[in-house]
Parts: sequence; structure tokens; C-alpha cells
Amino acid sequence: MGKNLTKRSEDYSKWYNELVIKADLAENSGVRGCMVIKPYGYAIWEKMQTELDRMFKETGHENAYFPLFIPKSYLSREADHVEGFAKECAVVTHYRLKNAEDGSGVVVDPEAKLEEELIVRPTSETIIWDTYRKWIQSYRDLPVLVNQWANVVRWEMRTRLFLRTAEFLWQEGHTAHATREEAIAEAEQMMGVYADFAENFMGVPVIRGVKSESERFAGAVETYCIEALMQDGKALQAGTSHFLGQNFAKAFDVKYANKEGQQEYVWATSWGVSTRLMGALVMTHSDDNGLVLPPKLAPIQVVIVPIYKGEDQLDAISDHVAPLVQELRSRGISVKYDNRDTQKPGWKFNEYELKGVPVRLAIGPRDLENGTYEVARRDTMEKEIVKGEEVVDRIEFLLDDIQKNIYSKALNYREEHITKVDSYEEFKELLESKGGFFSAHWDGTVETEDAIKEETKATIRCIPLDAEEGEGVCMYSGKPSKRRVLFAKAY
Amino acid sequence: MGKNLTKRSEDYSKWYNELVIKADLAENSGVRGCMVIKPYGYAIWEKMQTELDRMFKETGHENAYFPLFIPKSYLSREADHVEGFAKECAVVTHYRLKNAEDGSGVVVDPEAKLEEELIVRPTSETIIWDTYRKWIQSYRDLPVLVNQWANVVRWEMRTRLFLRTAEFLWQEGHTAHATREEAIAEAEQMMGVYADFAENFMGVPVIRGVKSESERFAGAVETYCIEALMQDGKALQAGTSHFLGQNFAKAFDVKYANKEGQQEYVWATSWGVSTRLMGALVMTHSDDNGLVLPPKLAPIQVVIVPIYKGEDQLDAISDHVAPLVQELRSRGISVKYDNRDTQKPGWKFNEYELKGVPVRLAIGPRDLENGTYEVARRDTMEKEIVKGEEVVDRIEFLLDDIQKNIYSKALNYREEHITKVDSYEEFKELLESKGGFFSAHWDGTVETEDAIKEETKATIRCIPLDAEEGEGVCMYSGKPSKRRVLFAKAY
Repeated sequence: MGKNLTKRSEDYSKWYNELVIKADLAENSGVRGCMVIKPYGYAIWEKMQTELDRMFKETGHENAYFPLFIPKSYLSREADHVEGFAKECAVVTHYRLKNAEDGSGVVVDPEAKLEEELIVRPTSETIIWDTYRKWIQSYRDLPVLVNQWANVVRWEMRTRLFLRTAEFLWQEGHTAHATREEAIAEAEQMMGVYADFAENFMGVPVIRGVKSESERFAGAVETYCIEALMQDGKALQAGTSHFLGQNFAKAFDVKYANKEGQQEYVWATSWGVSTRLMGALVMTHSDDNGLVLPPKLAPIQVVIVPIYKGEDQLDAISDHVAPLVQELRSRGISVKYDNRDTQKPGWKFNEYELKGVPVRLAIGPRDLENGTYEVARRDTMEKEIVKGEEVVDRIEFLLDDIQKNIYSKALNYREEHITKVDSYEEFKELLESKGGFFSAHWDGTVETEDAIKEETKATIRCIPLDAEEGEGVCMYSGKPSKRRVLFAKAY
Repeated sequence: MGKNLTKRSEDYSKWYNELVIKADLAENSGVRGCMVIKPYGYAIWEKMQTELDRMFKETGHENAYFPLFIPKSYLSREADHVEGFAKECAVVTHYRLKNAEDGSGVVVDPEAKLEEELIVRPTSETIIWDTYRKWIQSYRDLPVLVNQWANVVRWEMRTRLFLRTAEFLWQEGHTAHATREEAIAEAEQMMGVYADFAENFMGVPVIRGVKSESERFAGAVETYCIEALMQDGKALQAGTSHFLGQNFAKAFDVKYANKEGQQEYVWATSWGVSTRLMGALVMTHSDDNGLVLPPKLAPIQVVIVPIYKGEDQLDAISDHVAPLVQELRSRGISVKYDNRDTQKPGWKFNEYELKGVPVRLAIGPRDLENGTYEVARRDTMEKEIVKGEEVVDRIEFLLDDIQKNIYSKALNYREEHITKVDSYEEFKELLESKGGFFSAHWDGTVETEDAIKEETKATIRCIPLDAEEGEGVCMYSGKPSKRRVLFAKAY
């Protein structure tokens, strides 16, 4: 196809890296581990943001903004939290540069050393709970339902565009509640919002579950998650929602007076999704020809390519196409008419396939004569000739059908790749030969989890919420188990 | 009014600080100079963002995202730029913390020292132009019209909520062009977009002009600006748009092949507005009773307060009001029906005055009987009784009228506070007694500008674009001058 894109079957990882760059989604920057999100990639992220933000507001949340920096001492207040995040953070130690005495440029001014170092937020629980202490006095102040859209930094050693970068964009919800039950209901609700978004907008089927203790967020009592499966059989955690108990309220002394006037610690949740979703989107649907985007998140839903010789033909086609463009826009469909004369139609076809535009129309002199369009759908690459008077309805049908089809396809793949295993030998063999999720009994200990991870690189992705209770024996230790959990190798 | 708000006439500065906090716009955080933007303040900023983002896209710009960090060496590439920004930046020197040996918490791990320090972006010209080198090869790649919504950090010693904070939120546009003329046209266009936004959405009249050399952005050839006037007679720079010439293209070696195949340096602009606009909004319109918000940016445009005794009356009012709320929403008006039983009507009246809700409706049992509402407008505090069947139209009229009225009021104030002066004595006297802008002749030298600033604290805010040419003599030096410029004390 002339795209010079490595095939998925040859090297899935290389295919992904190439595709992200060739489709103009993102690229590496001059700063180690930090990416540049290019306009086309950012436009997809903006569409994700718009939908998520609407869903957050519909569930009663408001946006706010908290500082980028966290005083070092804040991080230490919650014991598990600091263990989880201190190891990978960017530390600001000075607040001024000065000219080097040898004229070689600028150097850090040693006199501008901060008394207390500041950490670039890896997540904002600490700075936010330090603030909530001022906001919350009485039960009347609860619940606090706040979300923040922000950048965060975690100093990762091995980075990959979107999947693992030192700086990434995300949203983080932080809520405060009067009761344990309400906080748990909130954490579960937000996992539900994420699952709804992943499935109905991204077209990515997800499994809802809770994390095992060792995979839990640092400082959480329970971590709810949604887990997706990529085309190479590896899982990807697409969003997490944490029930934090009273851990942060105790660390930052956030109490409220209940209706009886007694002081109680507040209950908390936090929940987030990030630009990592872009990686999940690319890896779930795309193929050897490039991106396949769900119509609901595609920046360009329909592209129209004129096929012509000379300016007269182009003018005739442009005149013919103008009312169609207008009609599509009035129906809320984003459409691009690409009449650039610097590129040939074949180049354009290639380009829009690479960029995953869901529906492509082509129109040449013969179509003009016949009153038809050549309509191609990106997901199946099928083409058809459609009459002018039927084309708008057909496009609406296709956008809807592509959205459904890519979800079904991903769901079928996922269903085919959940394998029930009862022996560790079978597990190890199928993990390598087939991949995907493995539903297996586990004795519930960290030791077994660690040993399996050490030997196979597979981790417990989640304990699915809909897991049937059922006694069994752990595939590794032979000890008793109460239910099956899902193992997989993961991003 | 029970708001415990300092009067503007007593202490304007204190009034501002109190109002920002009491109206729940923002507060100081535990991190020096960094603010927390609270949900109500953030909702106003979101409305600003939505309108500006629409205007940027309508003028052909796309959003993207560039790294938070800038390698120290990048900053040094453009000589003026580093002079302007090196003095006030947050410097990341390490990438890990570790447990203190004495168990007292965490300390910076000395082994995790970065080879090259990273600067938290004070503005992104350098990292962006380092990226544009990869994006631009040919005239076909131009123009590049990109905007970024981001947080930036400038280590200010004296900070004030919204007006001057170490971290602030902003947008920064960065464009690349084939010709000098096109870049200048872009810089002027974006100043126009900012002026349009300030006047037609914020209701803040602005003067368009260019900065004198010493007030120019570090690295710019020309800085266009919009200048507003606050109620205390001090000016506030509300937005800037810079023509950067080829300075950054040369510093980062960004060339393109023109149509003749010759290599040329690219021409650049950058332009930005920030959360500082929130300060301008508050200080332009608000009064001793609290915020006055322009209806186009008010998170709540209409509030309805029921006045009742007992649940039966409340239910009757709620039933009566429900279709009105629905009708207003269907017309795109944001409305809040405040039926909380934890607060009295008087408390609510106070609260919504403080928060600047443009239109307030009150309805009690007698109104219910008569089919009327008491309608109050926030800008003039006028009240009237309006019949139920006329209330929707009246609200639409009021929202429109308040938007116009607060603009006119601010414009009148501004016009009354542009004073033409020809002697330095008169200037100094009126600067203290009257304030505002002073239109005066200036000899065009930095020396004179510095001397006036030193002696009076007034600076040249801008050389207005519509300034009439007219020979004169500098009010300070007596040397010849070609046109008047605007002096003022400024935020």
C-alpha cells in the first residue's frame, strides 16, 4: 500500500511505534521521555476530553485546578503513597539561573536553592487533601466532587509514545464523602463511567474488576479498574478508580462535624484516565494499513477526494460537492473536502487510510455524469458505488455501523482470548502460544502472585466483578481458592 | 449587605483580594505563589477557554501539546529570550527521592542528578521551535498554525491571586510563516481576536497598541498588546501577540525551501492570554457587593430563589417554577433553582450577589397567587415585578442589556480616564490625583522611559495603533516627538 508500515504479524511493537509517528499522532521531543502530541493526535484527545468531561459533569462533578508542585514533605504524609511515588519523580531544587562566569551560557544559581524541594506532581492526592482540609468542616460541605484536567510527571526509565511517558496528560477526580458506603459507590460509579466511555465511544470492550493488593494504587484501600485486550494478546489497564478509605483524610487531618456534631474523618476516592487511552485506541482497532478510528472520536469522519484532470473538472466537482459538504455538516458530521492540487488522489487515499478516516468518498468525471460517489469504509476497506441522493443516509449508516463493527470485532477477539486454565503448565504454554487473559484459581497470596510474575511476566490484571464464586485450587500452589482471577501479560 | 467586603474606596487592593476568596474564585495553596482555582472560578475560566478556543479554530489554528520541561541549553539559544526568562524559573535537577537514613521522611537522591537541568516552561518558544525544525522543510509545510493550552511557571517574588502567580494557566499560540508580511498579519490578527474577546465577551474595553522596546517580549521584534483600565485607575495588560521575526528560526535553525528551491529562515509569531484575564474581569466590573459578571461568561446566568414557609409552599413554588427552568434551559440559558432548605432566602440573595449572578428571580406565595416574579439585575441592583408570561423574554432582554451596560460603563470610565498632558508636572500630579492613561509625547528613548518609571512608577503601556501622528516635544526631555504614547501605572 506504499505506507512502509511494518506488519503487525512481523513486529507488533514496531508497527505501533511507526504508526503513531506516521499517522501524525505524536513524536518524541528533545526532552527525555516527554512526547509532543501533534495536532491530529491532540484532536482525538480533545474529542475524548469533551465526552469524558460531559460524563463527569452529568454525574455531578465540577472542574478545578490545583498546583503543579507538591512540597516534598506532603508526599511523606501517607506512608504507602510515598513508597509508590517517591521513586520516580522530577524534583525542583532551585528557582533561578544566572549567566555562567565563563560566558558559556546559563547555570543554576546556587544562591537560589529552595528551602524545601518541590516535586512535580505524579498525582495530586496530597496537595488536594491539604486543600480539602480548608474546604470541609461540616457534613453540609460534603460531598466534594471535583475533577482536574492536568499534566503529571512520573520519571519512567523506559518510555513509549502514549503508553508510558515521563509527562502525560490526564484527568484526576478527587472526591470527599461523609460515609464509607457513599465513597465506595462513587468509586464504582466512576469505573462504570470509564467502562461506558471505553466501550461506547472508543469501541474498546473492557473487563471491570478490582486489583489484587500488590497492583493497588499506593494509598488505596481498593482499586477498581477497566482492563482491555490489545491485538497482540497483551492487556492494557485503561482506567482506575480508587476507594481511598480515610487514609488521606487521616494523613492531612480532614474531619467534618456530622449531624450530631461529632468530628469524623472524611472518606475519599480518586480516579483517572490519561493519554494512555490513545495507545489503547490505536492498538485495539488499527491494522496494517494504518489507524482505524471509531467514528465518534474521529477528528475527520468523512473525507471527499476529487479525481480530476484540469481546473474545469475540479471546478465542476467542487460545485457538485459543496451542497453535500454543507448537508453533512448540518447533521453534525465532520467532513473534509481535500481539493489540494499538490497531491495526487492515490496519495490522498493512502494518507486518509493511514489516518483512519472512517468514510472516504471519491468522485471523478464519470461519477459526476452518473450522479454517484465511490464510498469506502475504513474498517473493512469495502467500496461501493452510491447514488447522490442516497449518499447522506448511507454515510450516516456507515458511521454508525463502523462504530458497532469495530467494537464487535474487538469483543470477539477478546472473548476468544479469555482462556480458562487449571494447570500451571497449560497456563505457561498458552500464555506464550495464544496470549490473552487467563482465568485461573489463585490462592490469594502475594507470594504466589510474585512467583508467577517472576517466572512468566504475567500479572493478575483484575479480579473481575462478575466472577462467579467457585471453590478450586490455586494453579500454582495447589492451595484452596475461592474464585478465578484474570492473569495476562500487560502493557 | 452583610458580606464583610472591604469597600473599593477604602482599599481597592484589599477589596480585590477579599472578593476573589469570598466569591470562591481562587485561594492560595501550600505551595508558595501557586494558587488553587476553585470550581466557581474555574467554571468562568472554562467559559473563557471555550470562546477563545472557538475563535482560534475559526482563524485556522489547531491545538497540540509540547513538553512541560525545557532543557537548560535550549533557553540560551536566543540571547534576549534567556535574559528575560532565566531569572525567574523553576529548575528540575534530580529525578528521584529516597528514604532518609534517619527515617525522617524522604530526601533527594544525590545519585539521581540530571546531566542537564530541566526548566519548567515559563513559555514554550524554545521547545516548540526545536520541534518545528522537524516539521518544516518546504513552503508546502507552511504556515504552521498551532496553539497550546498549558500551565507555565515564572518564579515571581510577589504574587497575587490571578494577577501574578508562580504557576498560571494560559494558551500560547506559535505560528510559522513563509514571509515577514504574513507573520505580521498573523500577529495583528491575534491581537484583534483578543480585543474582540475582551470587549464582546468579557465586556472589557481595551486599547490596541504596540509596546515600546523595553516592554517588549524577550525575543520579539514587535509586541502587540491590548491594555485595559481597572477601576482604581491602573492599567492591566490583558493579552500580547508577538512578531518574532526570524529570531527563533535562526536560533533553532528552522529553514524551508521556497518555491524556487532556495533555503530561507521561517518567520514566527507567538501570542497568549492567561488566567490573569480573571483578575481583569473581576477588577473591571465588580462592586462593593461582590462580583459583577458578564452574562456571556457567567457560569450561572439566572438564579431562582423560592421564598416559602413549610414544605407545601415550597412544593407549590417548585411545581410552578419547573416549566420556567426547562424553558430557559431550552433557550441555552444556564439557570439554577436554589431550593436548599439549609439556608434562608436573605443568605442566598447575598451569596448570589457576591458571586455575580447576572439575574436573580425570587418567588414567594404572593407572587404565586399573582403569577409574578421579582426580578433583580446584578449590575444596577434594580428590582422589578414581572408577569409570568413575560418573564422569559424579560430575562433574555436583561442578559443582553447587562452585557452591554457593563461594557458601556467600563468604556465611559476608560474614556474619562485618558488624559492628554503636555507637561511633566501636570502628568505627575494627575497620575496621583486622577489616575488612568496619560497621552503624552515621548522622545522615543529608553533613558527617558526609565527615568519616568523610576520617578513615578508609570510605564509606557503602549503606542496606540490609532494614535494620530503629530509632532510635539517630549514631556520629560523636551526633545522632539512624533506621536503621543500612553503612560499609566500598571498591574
